[in-house]
Amino acid sequence: MKGVILSIDPSVRLIDISHEIAAQDVMEAAFVLQNAAWHFPDGTVHLVVVDPGVGTGRNALAVELNGQFFVGADNGLFTLLTSSNGESWPGRAVLLNRPEYWYTREPSSTFHGRDIFAAVAAHLASGRSLDDVGTPTSNVMRLRWATPFADDKGLQGWIVQVDHYGNCITNISRSVYHTYDRKRSPKCYVGTTILEGLCSTYDEAIAGEPILLFGSSGYLEVAINRGNAARLLSIRKGDPINIVFSE
Amino acid sequence: MKGVILSIDPSVRLIDISHEIAAQDVMEAAFVLQNAAWHFPDGTVHLVVVDPGVGTGRNALAVELNGQFFVGADNGLFTLLTSSNGESWPGRAVLLNRPEYWYTREPSSTFHGRDIFAAVAAHLASGRSLDDVGTPTSNVMRLRWATPFADDKGLQGWIVQVDHYGNCITNISRSVYHTYDRKRSPKCYVGTTILEGLCSTYDEAIAGEPILLFGSSGYLEVAINRGNAARLLSIRKGDPINIVFSE
Amino acid sequence: MKGVILSIDPSVRLIDISHEIAAQDVMEAAFVLQNAAWHFPDGTVHLVVVDPGVGTGRNALAVELNGQFFVGADNGLFTLLTSSNGESWPGRAVLLNRPEYWYTREPSSTFHGRDIFAAVAAHLASGRSLDDVGTPTSNVMRLRWATPFADDKGLQGWIVQVDHYGNCITNISRSVYHTYDRKRSPKCYVGTTILEGLCSTYDEAIAGEPILLFGSSGYLEVAINRGNAARLLSIRKGDPINIVFSE
Repeated sequence: MKGVILSIDPSVRLIDISHEIAAQDVMEAAFVLQNAAWHFPDGTVHLVVVDPGVGTGRNALAVELNGQFFVGADNGLFTLLTSSNGESWPGRAVLLNRPEYWYTREPSSTFHGRDIFAAVAAHLASGRSLDDVGTPTSNVMRLRWATPFADDKGLQGWIVQVDHYGNCITNISRSVYHTYDRKRSPKCYVGTTILEGLCSTYDEAIAGEPILLFGSSGYLEVAINRGNAARLLSIRKGDPINIVFSE
Repeated sequence: MKGVILSIDPSVRLIDISHEIAAQDVMEAAFVLQNAAWHFPDGTVHLVVVDPGVGTGRNALAVELNGQFFVGADNGLFTLLTSSNGESWPGRAVLLNRPEYWYTREPSSTFHGRDIFAAVAAHLASGRSLDDVGTPTSNVMRLRWATPFADDKGLQGWIVQVDHYGNCITNISRSVYHTYDRKRSPKCYVGTTILEGLCSTYDEAIAGEPILLFGSSGYLEVAINRGNAARLLSIRKGDPINIVFSE
Repeated sequence: MKGVILSIDPSVRLIDISHEIAAQDVMEAAFVLQNAAWHFPDGTVHLVVVDPGVGTGRNALAVELNGQFFVGADNGLFTLLTSSNGESWPGRAVLLNRPEYWYTREPSSTFHGRDIFAAVAAHLASGRSLDDVGTPTSNVMRLRWATPFADDKGLQGWIVQVDHYGNCITNISRSVYHTYDRKRSPKCYVGTTILEGLCSTYDEAIAGEPILLFGSSGYLEVAINRGNAARLLSIRKGDPINIVFSE
């Protein structure tokens, strides 16, 4: 993919964000994408290749939002970039149906990342517009897993990512949390433990004690000060987390 | 190595292709190299450091082929870049015997990647010619593992790489395959399974079913739609794969 | 972090050195840093984010030494950059207390890498001076684990890093070793084995035989020619290594 981009425009700057998304995990990719994207300068093109449906009928997209561009399969990757749940994409989106901007007019059936997405991203980075590379569409798939279940008593979410430190990051954002907590204290059921109360830094607890806090991306996470929460509490990606608020 | 390159020419652009070649696995490196190399622009310098014989008498080389440059140990790394089996290298090749283009005139005995190869690659990238950095040679080691056994009844190859998804990529190229299949259907013995017929996309099979297809690099691979073939079929790098053609 | 840097100065060149330091392992980070740093050109800014004390009272620093800059937490990361054991930092150092050079005036409590260090590194790379981003300090934490125990009979150190090949790298430098060996031969106790004598290349021993040699970074290491020493000798990071000199 890097070779394809540089063969189209050798002046494009390439920045690696992650090569460690679990295989075919659209949810993890969407999470990493929205954490990273908005810190980049205007006009950045984000190339996202997590594409379990490659070679089938799924659409290929380039989308634009808040001055940035995103290229990838229409499989929910872009769900978290906007909190809008409406039918149509709040920015602009085009279907990638112009083979003259692909790497080859006969793309392989298993690697559109190289044969379509990388090439289109390179053309966008070198100044082509969305309208050059495809035709407008208002359909961009957004999946519902982004949203935890919630009611007046509590919240049910799940673990979206286990990071390098073993911190377990949930899909419960600060804003969703505060919509429901009404300043009540949380009791949290996750893995093999029950946690009470919220901390604001890892070091607020003694070493080895599990805690609940909002991480640097604004999502609730389960952590152990100087320890690996995932391993010690038997938490895995996809596991549920239940929060009950008590007066 | 990156520091060495930038200290020789700070304007060189560095692109990472892989840091995940198994330790001392010349075969995997050769495979990744030939998959990536030809997508890059003319004049690219490919620096390949897989060097189990470092510090022994093996030669150090810079080679040129189809407008691209390759720097590394003479241990078979460049085998797959050409289908030629002749004695002499079809492009040009030089022995790296000019210490004035090394990082140090007294290279360490264990890391020529830093002390010789990175420095020579930087000099080539900044405009030096092959003839500047060494003296011509026609001997470039090419190994025979590149070629599967084949006869009129079938093919025997092996697994060269297990990718991030668990797909098991063989050393059987599309052109070798079609030289022998004469439009007969394949029966494939690999790992714990027997596969019949060829697919063209992962999604052609139902989820969980193992299939045989040509991957994006043009080599036969064993895959499981939405599953990890290596794990589920107990296939490991180096394992044999046997194909029998039936009328 | 990469987005933050490019949003401050889009012309900064980003080079990845390692994303594989073990979680919160200041010792390993310090070791990788001093191995890499001095090969880079003058004026390079090294951004090092290994920060187990993030969100607590630990200081944030930018330091300068030998024409290069280093940004990170004051937790011992910079210990190996200088062999000086004096109280004050031999180069220059500043406390990062100027929020106008941070990414945000209200940094998160868990990710100063993004909110403080990356931003300050970008400002230094784009031409700001140390004095712009903080106020001078002479206190830079340097830890004692850098120094093995030594006396006339021998040395006791430990394994600082296990590399990609399973080579086990110690904290015993060539200069420390030669201060004590007085040309006597070493007998080395490590993991499940006892080694005698020093080699100078991996290939000096027959395949499969464990050896002791100085690696490319100038530190003593335990290796197995064409094998994985860590696995075969049951050596792990942090394990002790004892060397006894005999006449």
